[in-house]
Amino acid sequence: MKTINVGLIGFGTVGSGTAEVLHEQAARLEKRTGHLIRLKTVADLNVESIPAHLGDVKLTKDVEDIFGDPEIDIVIELIGGIEPAKTFILKAIASGKHVVTANKALVSQHGMEIFNAAAAQGVEVGFEASVGGGIPVIKALKEGLVANNIMSIMGIMNGTANYILNKMTDEGAPFQEVLAEAQEIGYAEADPTYDIEGIDTAHKLVILMTMAFGMHVKLEDISTEGISSIEPIDIEFAREFGYRIKLLAISVNHGDHVEARVHPTMVPERHMLANIGGAYNGIHFNGDMVGNVLLYGLGAGKMPTGSAVAADVVDIARNIVHGSINRVPSLSYRPENITAGSITPMEELRCPYYFRISAADEPGVLSTLAGILGKNDISIESVIQKSREEGGTVPVVILAYEASESSVRKALAEIDSLDICPVKTVKIRILQDRDNGQG
Amino acid sequence: MKTINVGLIGFGTVGSGTAEVLHEQAARLEKRTGHLIRLKTVADLNVESIPAHLGDVKLTKDVEDIFGDPEIDIVIELIGGIEPAKTFILKAIASGKHVVTANKALVSQHGMEIFNAAAAQGVEVGFEASVGGGIPVIKALKEGLVANNIMSIMGIMNGTANYILNKMTDEGAPFQEVLAEAQEIGYAEADPTYDIEGIDTAHKLVILMTMAFGMHVKLEDISTEGISSIEPIDIEFAREFGYRIKLLAISVNHGDHVEARVHPTMVPERHMLANIGGAYNGIHFNGDMVGNVLLYGLGAGKMPTGSAVAADVVDIARNIVHGSINRVPSLSYRPENITAGSITPMEELRCPYYFRISAADEPGVLSTLAGILGKNDISIESVIQKSREEGGTVPVVILAYEASESSVRKALAEIDSLDICPVKTVKIRILQDRDNGQG
Repeated sequence: MKTINVGLIGFGTVGSGTAEVLHEQAARLEKRTGHLIRLKTVADLNVESIPAHLGDVKLTKDVEDIFGDPEIDIVIELIGGIEPAKTFILKAIASGKHVVTANKALVSQHGMEIFNAAAAQGVEVGFEASVGGGIPVIKALKEGLVANNIMSIMGIMNGTANYILNKMTDEGAPFQEVLAEAQEIGYAEADPTYDIEGIDTAHKLVILMTMAFGMHVKLEDISTEGISSIEPIDIEFAREFGYRIKLLAISVNHGDHVEARVHPTMVPERHMLANIGGAYNGIHFNGDMVGNVLLYGLGAGKMPTGSAVAADVVDIARNIVHGSINRVPSLSYRPENITAGSITPMEELRCPYYFRISAADEPGVLSTLAGILGKNDISIESVIQKSREEGGTVPVVILAYEASESSVRKALAEIDSLDICPVKTVKIRILQDRDNGQG
Repeated sequence: MKTINVGLIGFGTVGSGTAEVLHEQAARLEKRTGHLIRLKTVADLNVESIPAHLGDVKLTKDVEDIFGDPEIDIVIELIGGIEPAKTFILKAIASGKHVVTANKALVSQHGMEIFNAAAAQGVEVGFEASVGGGIPVIKALKEGLVANNIMSIMGIMNGTANYILNKMTDEGAPFQEVLAEAQEIGYAEADPTYDIEGIDTAHKLVILMTMAFGMHVKLEDISTEGISSIEPIDIEFAREFGYRIKLLAISVNHGDHVEARVHPTMVPERHMLANIGGAYNGIHFNGDMVGNVLLYGLGAGKMPTGSAVAADVVDIARNIVHGSINRVPSLSYRPENITAGSITPMEELRCPYYFRISAADEPGVLSTLAGILGKNDISIESVIQKSREEGGTVPVVILAYEASESSVRKALAEIDSLDICPVKTVKIRILQDRDNGQG
């Protein structure tokens, strides 16, 4: 029986969860793999606060105690953020150690530098925990769906945003109130920007796209909108039309170019993604062979993320024992086959739309609005006009058939410049029915 | 670049799909793995009917052309059923070849003989396609969730049964009519027994249980009930109570013993499993670390199943190239750590129940029924009694709180022996809310 020694950098929420998973499951992992996976050293600046129950694990403030220990095979980085995480990972690689990380910000923005360094050293980098928490989604893309050209990725990849939207849906409460509540119970961070503005979701989409399509993608090329402008009234109208509003990451493979965007989306209520509750994540792929596949689970949290980190550690441990390092390429395609990705400009997107226009409650308004939309090749599927006063305006809600984003932007600019429309129009994109995930 | 040669036995629906996947995806698999995976030989008794587009693949009626070919590394068995599939697989193993199969009947009933033979020969047996079609569920259990004690398995694992129940739900049509329709369009087989009586689902549950719990399970120990006795009226009542009826495989890990059963189940309508539409499958695990995970996709069909078969072929090809055969044990636990499983007798099951009692429409009936239930420790949660005549009887529908199966059987035997209850009572088990899959 071989012992694989592990060093862990960062003993925060996920770090302590990972230590707990490795400790709790040690006997099971031995029964499954035949080897002993041993957490040897934990490095954290607040080493004093690490509980004693870790047993004979060495605690240190100095990461060099990990990099310099020839017994340590695998380094787990769980401090998050770009620096010093990046420096630590590159040092671990330079020391000939394999790396496991949950750091989506880092992998999505500096992944290539890290993977190239790892390739040069002949070590592996595991990052299952960077997308979808405990859901084995990276492994599914790299191995389970290996014989597929992935045609689309659609997912709810941020549990905080999903929790807030669900609360708003169930209780009709406004965004700010639900956010404050979520912060109080620890479901949202003090600075929630990354979660609610879709940035965290975009990080994860970049990672999945690289593996699904075998292409480099730049984070800044992903059009990203968050949920902070969604109001309860939009959720209510969505329901009337048979939709639920979800923050989705969407990427569609058109062969020579690829759509990639993160925005609130109206999802048909019978679609699997419409029914992802609470802080859960759901990631949907369409493969040219397998059809629709959805993977669902807790996208964050101490133990689920620890479960994914441990799975990566086991994967690498197996490769160490069997001498099969880099048996599966880190990014699913072999490095020489990864190409530069071309992302479709957002203006060229075509999809159905929901518009909530706040217009003066006077005759002829609808005709004016319909005229502007028609002139821009936007066809109306249905209209709800309710005379509920809101500072002198009424909401005119319009569902439009598939139209181009550029036409929509032009039309809404004109509408929003009208005297009868004093408030900015709310626009929400609608998931097309052909993507309904039910075949 | 290494070439891995594959022989395929059985060119039916899944066989031709697999050939198509390997052909269509050959370039992609090379870009991902760096090796060439080549379908060298196809053996089928109706070799004449194999289309010419397979190119330079050798066609034969004689399986010995595969077993005797020293170039062939991996044999895919896709003829289904017990014999001659079992003999062929054992011969392939004896010839030193790795095996990939989609044969759930065989793996669930003769798996140990096959896995032992493979272990003795140092070859691998892949069976991802035997459960959940294209969904990478076996890989998830063996690798992605490796650091978990699986606490429960719950799944819709038969697309035909799910399709029929959904059609009955959406259209209010009776079972026989929907079945006939499904047979006409090829969604159900001429002899649908395996699908509609839960036998196919039980096969798949046995396979998942072995890997989830590391235990041998006998097919005959799984209590199995099908959907042929479900009537539209039950579906309607289920809806009134907020449930949908699904054919579920359920296995709960109680440590020293394990529940294992297949039966129609009332699932809370917001549960992910309640929303699995069409011919889709959904398989739900609860892991002690990861929490709830659901994997969803097409559980059958030519291309999805071919996708899973191809994934197994790639997995084994990687192990051949890297010299890492049996890197992951076939059954997730190493053979010496797989124990004999003890399945809880069905009588000891405790869960909430739905009863539809057909009773004479006369005063005092409810009191009699309630008396019998109460005497057997069965508490009533709610009752719907509608005076809709059905040959002199009215349906009395009762939801009962958690009760033991043995009490329920006793109570229903007494109720069904009453003169006022001339028709057998329908009983459907209810999925408990604590399993609601939403955390």
